[in-house]
Amino acid sequence: MIIGRFPIAGLINASKDILMSTIRHITLPVGFVSAGVKCGIKASGRNDMAIITGEADVAAAVVTTSNQVFGEPVRYCRSILPKGYGTVRGIVINSGCSNVCTGPAGFRDAKTMATMTAKKLGTTADKVLVASTGIIGHRLPMEKVKAGIADAASKLSRNNDTETLLAIMTTDTREKYAVVQTVIGGKMVTLAGIVKGAGMIAPSLATMISVVTTDAAISPADLYKAVVAEATVTFNGITIDSDTSTSDTVAVLASGLAGNKPIKAGSAEFKQFASALQEVFGELARAVVIDGEGATKLVEIAVTGARSDAEAAVAAKSVANSPLFKCAIHGGDPNWGRIACALGKSAAKVDPEKLMIGIGGITIFARGTGKKFNVKRVEEHLKGTSIQVDCDLGLGKGRFTAITCDLSKEYVAINADYST
Amino acid sequence: MIIGRFPIAGLINASKDILMSTIRHITLPVGFVSAGVKCGIKASGRNDMAIITGEADVAAAVVTTSNQVFGEPVRYCRSILPKGYGTVRGIVINSGCSNVCTGPAGFRDAKTMATMTAKKLGTTADKVLVASTGIIGHRLPMEKVKAGIADAASKLSRNNDTETLLAIMTTDTREKYAVVQTVIGGKMVTLAGIVKGAGMIAPSLATMISVVTTDAAISPADLYKAVVAEATVTFNGITIDSDTSTSDTVAVLASGLAGNKPIKAGSAEFKQFASALQEVFGELARAVVIDGEGATKLVEIAVTGARSDAEAAVAAKSVANSPLFKCAIHGGDPNWGRIACALGKSAAKVDPEKLMIGIGGITIFARGTGKKFNVKRVEEHLKGTSIQVDCDLGLGKGRFTAITCDLSKEYVAINADYST
Repeated sequence: MIIGRFPIAGLINASKDILMSTIRHITLPVGFVSAGVKCGIKASGRNDMAIITGEADVAAAVVTTSNQVFGEPVRYCRSILPKGYGTVRGIVINSGCSNVCTGPAGFRDAKTMATMTAKKLGTTADKVLVASTGIIGHRLPMEKVKAGIADAASKLSRNNDTETLLAIMTTDTREKYAVVQTVIGGKMVTLAGIVKGAGMIAPSLATMISVVTTDAAISPADLYKAVVAEATVTFNGITIDSDTSTSDTVAVLASGLAGNKPIKAGSAEFKQFASALQEVFGELARAVVIDGEGATKLVEIAVTGARSDAEAAVAAKSVANSPLFKCAIHGGDPNWGRIACALGKSAAKVDPEKLMIGIGGITIFARGTGKKFNVKRVEEHLKGTSIQVDCDLGLGKGRFTAITCDLSKEYVAINADYST
Repeated sequence: MIIGRFPIAGLINASKDILMSTIRHITLPVGFVSAGVKCGIKASGRNDMAIITGEADVAAAVVTTSNQVFGEPVRYCRSILPKGYGTVRGIVINSGCSNVCTGPAGFRDAKTMATMTAKKLGTTADKVLVASTGIIGHRLPMEKVKAGIADAASKLSRNNDTETLLAIMTTDTREKYAVVQTVIGGKMVTLAGIVKGAGMIAPSLATMISVVTTDAAISPADLYKAVVAEATVTFNGITIDSDTSTSDTVAVLASGLAGNKPIKAGSAEFKQFASALQEVFGELARAVVIDGEGATKLVEIAVTGARSDAEAAVAAKSVANSPLFKCAIHGGDPNWGRIACALGKSAAKVDPEKLMIGIGGITIFARGTGKKFNVKRVEEHLKGTSIQVDCDLGLGKGRFTAITCDLSKEYVAINADYST
């Protein structure tokens, strides 16, 4: 059950001011502390350095970008967790500079961040994950970074969740977090996540970073299994503009202090945990889309009846990434031709004779031709801020839901009118 | 040598009025006549029915959309030329209604167009190609269509090229044609092409159609080889917004009346012919991009050093389809981070350490990091209307050039503000 989250419904048309809150989230699971401070990487003077750490070592699972051009912090995380999982103490994150395309010197900077943080936490550099977000192609100002790490380390506590979240944001306009609690094996288990997303107002920002903490007891390897499975159906299903960032990182840390019997892959408890993780990831992923550049509407494209889940994903993402479709949604136009076109151009098998397309629950295309439909009702649905598109391919049992936003003039303004 | 073409350099910033011209193009090769008339399919009352035909049967090669949702005219062309080539008399084309997603009744309409035209030309329906462009999901108004075919057939001549071209246009803002002449085996051979493109101001338009005529003597099978090879490096390299239309059709008709000895695949003459065809296709493809929705700049992305030509194409198109990159070009921002990101996310092998990126001939990224470069000179280049981006992957000999336009607020306005 979700007990705290970025309040989606109320916010899509809210003002773009950052909403300050003092709700605890990332340190709500037992065994974690955090801090967020300003150290001058951001010219704006806003928070730009965060540490989130277990009070002792924690199980960790990390998934990173599939982009072949990836940041030096990503390279560093892969070097200390070559399988994607293991035991760590915590993670240090800065915003304002992504440390991407900075070469071997940039890698040394990432490692220095880990070393500095490890010293303050009484551990070694191979136990500290690193993530950076911000402009691509610039070296980190290491003197400021070092001062920031020292400052953050001195402030670690359970009362800094908001300051911590602010410190990982760049041009995000809203705090994005989610908290889920569930009873596993008779014990209350808490999962909490924060995310920074796709508010890339200044160009060249390397984007998504998410940290999720939990007090569940679970081995690193089993944690990794759950993370990969659930990231595939949540974070990997969202798209603002089809551009996979060079810094995408999702780190999940498990302290094991909830008192539950360790969760084993394949068990009923594992399913429960994975389902709670999916809820947290799903909320964070939706929050990222809602805070997408120029977004005014959240659009879910549910593809069913594909030959496989993988083909359903390909078809759903083809629609979600179609600029013509996204413009039609922005304009509130029930334009099924663009949906059929985007499905048909995808690598997924599509047979127009078996295809069904619906908007807002109303079928508008079936068996090769458009249907007579209640245009007023569909247009009414499209005037809302949460749009549902259903595509049944009629070929099998594969299903996938992609989530995207509309394409507005504001997106172009954000990405064209500001200069590097 | 190109002897006539849509004058690219002068037009990119010209007014959006259609430029009327009386230059001959599509009937310049020996043995062809054409006509274009208005029959009332378009509400605007503009030309909407065209016939382009040999005076006798001609060799034909046709390539059509790879979209799995395709128009009934495409289905009809495939039914009469299952291999993509053969002997035909000519082609009938209407604009204003694409006859896509209209089911078996739509297929019968396409066949009726062929039958009507064949009767007027004194041949059979299986010798007449059909293409339609315009709104998706509507049946053709067959009474108007029949009257239009009769009218056009009665006006076939060598003096109607402009009327013919106007009749295949929808919301194109400019006439797009190209004429190339070359001496093959001691004989002057002429190739002429017209194209309608991506001015999809009303939503749901099924877009690109191109017809190329030539008087070269060449068998249908060899003509098809040349057409497939050259379409791959020209039409298949352009993208306005990554949305492959349901009606894309390129038909090449060869009358064989130039007096040359028949061109055989693999010969020096074949290479010459293919090269001339590439010139015509290339000009038409560039013209389509320049007339792209909201386009203010033509952008060539030349990828070299890929492991294969296929991987070079994947990498080049990933950049050409990146909304972030296209916005940066629109804003004149020398933002190499977005180019590196788009290359890296593609399915082509990319190694940042071997990657070189240049804009306007100036290297701005090499071996994993950004280079110091003359920002003023690059910005000056980006202020122009023809932008050159070079990406050398440093991994092999594969090369491909993709051509696209920038992404402007006007694109969103065109595609969101008008309703179906």
